[in-house]
Amino acid sequence: MTKRVALAFSGGLDTTVCVPLLEEEYGYDEVVGVTVDVGQPSEEFDEAEETAEALDLEHYVVDAKEAFAELCLDSVRANATYQGYPLGTALARPVIAEAILGVAEEHDCDALAHGCTGKGNDQLRFETVWRASDKEVIAPVRELGLTREWEIEYADEKDLPVEGGNEGAWSIDTNLWSRSVEGDDLEDPTYVPPEDIYDWTTTPGEVDGEELIEIGFEMGYPVTLNGEAVGSVELIEELNEVAGAYGVGRTDMMEDRMLGLKVRENYEHPAATVLLTAHEALEQLVFTKSERDFKQQIDDQWAQQGYKGLVDSPLVNSLEGYLDAGQEKVTGTVTVKLQGGQCRPVARDSEYGVYSESAASFNTETVDGIEQADATGVAKYHGFQERLANQVLAGVKERQETDEEDEDGEKLKADGGEVDE
Amino acid sequence: MTKRVALAFSGGLDTTVCVPLLEEEYGYDEVVGVTVDVGQPSEEFDEAEETAEALDLEHYVVDAKEAFAELCLDSVRANATYQGYPLGTALARPVIAEAILGVAEEHDCDALAHGCTGKGNDQLRFETVWRASDKEVIAPVRELGLTREWEIEYADEKDLPVEGGNEGAWSIDTNLWSRSVEGDDLEDPTYVPPEDIYDWTTTPGEVDGEELIEIGFEMGYPVTLNGEAVGSVELIEELNEVAGAYGVGRTDMMEDRMLGLKVRENYEHPAATVLLTAHEALEQLVFTKSERDFKQQIDDQWAQQGYKGLVDSPLVNSLEGYLDAGQEKVTGTVTVKLQGGQCRPVARDSEYGVYSESAASFNTETVDGIEQADATGVAKYHGFQERLANQVLAGVKERQETDEEDEDGEKLKADGGEVDE
Amino acid sequence: MTKRVALAFSGGLDTTVCVPLLEEEYGYDEVVGVTVDVGQPSEEFDEAEETAEALDLEHYVVDAKEAFAELCLDSVRANATYQGYPLGTALARPVIAEAILGVAEEHDCDALAHGCTGKGNDQLRFETVWRASDKEVIAPVRELGLTREWEIEYADEKDLPVEGGNEGAWSIDTNLWSRSVEGDDLEDPTYVPPEDIYDWTTTPGEVDGEELIEIGFEMGYPVTLNGEAVGSVELIEELNEVAGAYGVGRTDMMEDRMLGLKVRENYEHPAATVLLTAHEALEQLVFTKSERDFKQQIDDQWAQQGYKGLVDSPLVNSLEGYLDAGQEKVTGTVTVKLQGGQCRPVARDSEYGVYSESAASFNTETVDGIEQADATGVAKYHGFQERLANQVLAGVKERQETDEEDEDGEKLKADGGEVDE
Amino acid sequence: MTKRVALAFSGGLDTTVCVPLLEEEYGYDEVVGVTVDVGQPSEEFDEAEETAEALDLEHYVVDAKEAFAELCLDSVRANATYQGYPLGTALARPVIAEAILGVAEEHDCDALAHGCTGKGNDQLRFETVWRASDKEVIAPVRELGLTREWEIEYADEKDLPVEGGNEGAWSIDTNLWSRSVEGDDLEDPTYVPPEDIYDWTTTPGEVDGEELIEIGFEMGYPVTLNGEAVGSVELIEELNEVAGAYGVGRTDMMEDRMLGLKVRENYEHPAATVLLTAHEALEQLVFTKSERDFKQQIDDQWAQQGYKGLVDSPLVNSLEGYLDAGQEKVTGTVTVKLQGGQCRPVARDSEYGVYSESAASFNTETVDGIEQADATGVAKYHGFQERLANQVLAGVKERQETDEEDEDGEKLKADGGEVDE
Repeated sequence: MTKRVALAFSGGLDTTVCVPLLEEEYGYDEVVGVTVDVGQPSEEFDEAEETAEALDLEHYVVDAKEAFAELCLDSVRANATYQGYPLGTALARPVIAEAILGVAEEHDCDALAHGCTGKGNDQLRFETVWRASDKEVIAPVRELGLTREWEIEYADEKDLPVEGGNEGAWSIDTNLWSRSVEGDDLEDPTYVPPEDIYDWTTTPGEVDGEELIEIGFEMGYPVTLNGEAVGSVELIEELNEVAGAYGVGRTDMMEDRMLGLKVRENYEHPAATVLLTAHEALEQLVFTKSERDFKQQIDDQWAQQGYKGLVDSPLVNSLEGYLDAGQEKVTGTVTVKLQGGQCRPVARDSEYGVYSESAASFNTETVDGIEQADATGVAKYHGFQERLANQVLAGVKERQETDEEDEDGEKLKADGGEVDE
Repeated sequence: MTKRVALAFSGGLDTTVCVPLLEEEYGYDEVVGVTVDVGQPSEEFDEAEETAEALDLEHYVVDAKEAFAELCLDSVRANATYQGYPLGTALARPVIAEAILGVAEEHDCDALAHGCTGKGNDQLRFETVWRASDKEVIAPVRELGLTREWEIEYADEKDLPVEGGNEGAWSIDTNLWSRSVEGDDLEDPTYVPPEDIYDWTTTPGEVDGEELIEIGFEMGYPVTLNGEAVGSVELIEELNEVAGAYGVGRTDMMEDRMLGLKVRENYEHPAATVLLTAHEALEQLVFTKSERDFKQQIDDQWAQQGYKGLVDSPLVNSLEGYLDAGQEKVTGTVTVKLQGGQCRPVARDSEYGVYSESAASFNTETVDGIEQADATGVAKYHGFQERLANQVLAGVKERQETDEEDEDGEKLKADGGEVDE
Repeated sequence: MTKRVALAFSGGLDTTVCVPLLEEEYGYDEVVGVTVDVGQPSEEFDEAEETAEALDLEHYVVDAKEAFAELCLDSVRANATYQGYPLGTALARPVIAEAILGVAEEHDCDALAHGCTGKGNDQLRFETVWRASDKEVIAPVRELGLTREWEIEYADEKDLPVEGGNEGAWSIDTNLWSRSVEGDDLEDPTYVPPEDIYDWTTTPGEVDGEELIEIGFEMGYPVTLNGEAVGSVELIEELNEVAGAYGVGRTDMMEDRMLGLKVRENYEHPAATVLLTAHEALEQLVFTKSERDFKQQIDDQWAQQGYKGLVDSPLVNSLEGYLDAGQEKVTGTVTVKLQGGQCRPVARDSEYGVYSESAASFNTETVDGIEQADATGVAKYHGFQERLANQVLAGVKERQETDEEDEDGEKLKADGGEVDE
Repeated sequence: MTKRVALAFSGGLDTTVCVPLLEEEYGYDEVVGVTVDVGQPSEEFDEAEETAEALDLEHYVVDAKEAFAELCLDSVRANATYQGYPLGTALARPVIAEAILGVAEEHDCDALAHGCTGKGNDQLRFETVWRASDKEVIAPVRELGLTREWEIEYADEKDLPVEGGNEGAWSIDTNLWSRSVEGDDLEDPTYVPPEDIYDWTTTPGEVDGEELIEIGFEMGYPVTLNGEAVGSVELIEELNEVAGAYGVGRTDMMEDRMLGLKVRENYEHPAATVLLTAHEALEQLVFTKSERDFKQQIDDQWAQQGYKGLVDSPLVNSLEGYLDAGQEKVTGTVTVKLQGGQCRPVARDSEYGVYSESAASFNTETVDGIEQADATGVAKYHGFQERLANQVLAGVKERQETDEEDEDGEKLKADGGEVDE
């Protein structure tokens, strides 16, 4: 029987060398290349297709933009960021893995392969999806311990269609939700990145003027842009354009990868910044303080699971139950101002707003039967237990000091007694 | 015996009407006005002194800038923000309250008074400090249920030196750490604030160019600016100037006050934004992931206590123990880029950095005896329990569906049976 | 128009004196006494009815046992305890408040009143329910600042039907879910309570033998007892009986009340202990580790809200969304052993169990494609970042010590140089 | 040069087969067996020594009871339990690993080896300590993928001194802090364990009478037993004896291991139960509510790190900073009652108690200037925001229903219109 393996294929060095290796080292008869569209620039598909052709590789391109965009908007409900940046790369991985699994099933593949090294996060995110199937999972680069040098030499020997080294100094990963730039000098935490690492965002110091953008939310999901209904993919693409032009959405950070490596990363994510900012601003209006406080825990759990590629885990299922219950109220509109490199909420409106004009105003006398003087009791009790605790502690300290002085006195007397002799 | 009361005195309407009321309504013989300097603009002290003179009020001005600046820098170690904004107003209150208590003790006052209404946070923050003393605490505006209208009329009757209404449409509170603007139209969550509510920050869309600022930290405290040692007050003042010029540090938000009111607030805080950003960037470099993850809980607790004015609570004492232990490593430098309205870390350096160049690099084969292929085991176990749980769940669902079908089948047969009869 | 007020009425001293006070001090024409059955002993209803009769009070008894039992079982899903004890008293209050509000609406009352003092939790729990209605809320004991002494004297003057002082030394509150004993000597944290404060639980040192109890759960709710379907009220009553006989379910604690008072409390709660123990044991079987870890936060929030009497808050609504999603799997049976004063889970069974016999066993070679040797990679990475951080820290310390020694050396040389002169 | 390896040696099957394997398979010239005393029964040392002798193995026994006892008491300050049981096994591992590392350094070993399989936690806990050294780390059983069957056969072939199979049906791990029993039937979550798996604890249903035990704490550490100063090891040994006789300290649970396996475990830990119970009871007295609430997070982090064998991690260092600051107040005495299988705190005393007799009492009128009526304001504000939020939500729902009715009405009209045609 013909043994077939589906390979996550980008046409880059890693995945290109995997094609012959899967045959030579793993004994597969046929390799099927799969490239999944989660919003990369079209050049990447051109490169993949050209390389596939040159390799004479059975090759499929799957459009998963819609599924990915929906997962991104799920992440907005959870205000999801990991160590401060929106989860672009992380969220794309399970979507890509599912799409490849789908192709593998459709085209009778026995195994699934990726070209990730053994250092990054993506290997873990891909495999946790794939290992839920009964197909074999193969990671040639990691399992064979390949290095970039070895791969280049091997490609040269085999005359593989790789464009050695002209991929640019930096390693770039792009999808709808973010564009990451890493590698080379950028790895050094002390290196100030040049402006030209940025592609989606205009230099903030070079944009003039400002723009108001209104996002409409229903059940926590953004559904309108400036009053017009808009699909998920279009919304994100449009906002990347608009907000990117204002220099909005850059992150320069140290990221802790799952295996324990700390890596310097640079990201661009204009749409994510706008949507996360707007969503959070609407939550500020419609949630009670206790809901706002606790939602941070929910959001953090969601993001941690998202970062790990575990968006289908049982924990996330329960978190979604929480979100479903509360996000009903996250319905309304938020206006953000794009200005310099800033995206700042400047207006929010919702019929679910926990906001009483009379209550907030300075000039009313009573609200719901509460008079000013009622706060006197609250004031007396505010910090009551803390004051009691501090008094008790001060009392103990004082006694201890007195005791020590007494002891010193005793000792002095005793010493003095000795002097007397 | 002469009964004396120390009054937190700003020279505004509220505190001005308190002066005669403390005599008339509360029976005090002498009122002592105290104005505490936590970095307000000089006009505020002028106003306070002029009004005090006009009232023939015994008046003291206390400089608490140093103490306040130190508390602000304590808050930086805890990355302290409340619902997203740096804690300027909140942290100033215990400092002011302590300073007034000091004057009251020095000048033989029996009581302490403030002019806060019964709606805000400040009454609670002042009183929790004062109630730890044995002095009486008086809040005339709240206790007598005064309204602004009543106060204006009363001031008019009494010919008090208040400049009726020309205080501007907005209510402004300024100190070293932040400038808040609230009231009037701004209370409406849907109202887009005009640019002229801002005083510290240039319009982000109108600043060109960029500037790199280097902050040096020791034990989590910022101690140098661009390589020069600098005191706390000077550091904050300087950064407000420099970063404000780039439009950095604006917050437009819905804030949940302690009593349960949700209020729309606008803040400016350039220095706070720079220092909080830089501090957090340094923590990213020197902390393990588990330290970063958990520190969010520590920071949140600190900020919640800070917001409540409970910076001396037993809980904060324990939190400081945590901070002391870990902040030792938050020593090094961070460079932030001011650009458009953005303040972005672009470089960070510390000898405590949990960063191994060899570990992070793409091109090395082994690190500390770890080879690429070692990640295979990690990948197999990643999400292992989650996959098992999902499989179990899928199995149950399948059985349930089969059971239901069987039941339907049974029912059909039963129904069929009936037909047969 | 006749003004009518509904009073939470127990027939004790506090609520009895409220009856004339509501007329005299608050000007109500008619007082309606309401006693709500949440599982108190029948004597309490007898006392209430006799006293009501003697007072010639319009009096209603409402059976809310079912509603209360259901709320208790809701709390089981959240493993709800506050500072270590099941939330009997706290959960009963909103149920009672709702029942009284219902009577008030049915019998045309304009106001609602309770006899709580200003120190406890119940005033807050009652009123947060009542203040959501448009009826006036009255708390005579608190508002008039009554003391027990004053009440006894007043009752005597008015010849009210109170049985002065023979209520026993302790203050007891009983409902289906718990029995609390407090007051007098028991208030002293150092006082070892005598055995006779306990009524529901046999002395643990005096029970022999043991008993296995099987609880069946569906969706997190206990629905069977030893294999028999059983209603909520019956289940709780039965378990109080059975487990109480084994001395199960005692708590002796320091409790922090909402106002900041710390109070010593004693509780009995056999059924609650059995159900909470069994429920948690089932969760241990069906939840992934990440679900178990995070559920502690959910449970703690639920319990904190429950303690405050805020079981209808928006936060609880979201928490219930979380619970609904995950508790589906908390379906199965748990066997607990009652023995001495212990209630210990000894067996648990569920088709949702995240448990693979092959995975757990010692003797199998591979599970789901995982071989023993795969753990080598995991072992190498385990604590990797922590080791790196410790090494970095040790390096810094070493350099610091060397520097200090060098400085000392320099200083020595310098000093020596001086000597040379 | 002679290559030497230090082997964690118990004399059981796993470590016995490792001795020849380290020579044959790993090429070591000399194996050094190390047995570390963390409180196992003396038979275990006899077995280890006899087997070592029979193997002609260089063998050392290291007494690490003191170091281990101190770590256990550190864990008491953090109220440390993992998924409900005290961390006996977990905490012993780093202590054992350090002791073996010490022997290895003293006796010039180049490598460190253990006999753990690839499934459990101990491999991870040992190695994270060892991998911080520059010695090689070897895990023959895991790396060679050995099974129990293979080992028995191999031992037989090699005529190794193993007592095949008579080790008993269960796998037992004993140290000062706990005794664990697992394996065989006990692995089955539904299997009710027989009484004879317990060795330290008397059957709870068979003990009569009761006993009061007083534990004295200083800075959170237990230092006296019934008023007498006592060392850490002695304290734990004594309490295991005394409390075990009352059947105190059994846990039957499902435990999630680090690799994701869920395993049924049984533990005995009388001393741990007494000390953890007493310590927590003292914290209840001396901590404010906010300290009690948040300490759960601190404790949970400590326990999670402890379970992973990461007690020396940077995070734990910071947690200890928190504990040092707050545990100063955990000084005083707690009396627990041993009775049936229960260990219940019945009295606690500390000069740091946040407890005001006047405040707690029922009968006083004012405390620190607070009168009963002051609670009225608190009551009005209690749940204020939640009520507002619920009202807003109810209003929206009502409008939605009205709108739907209207729509239905419209539709009806429209439909009606059609009928008209």
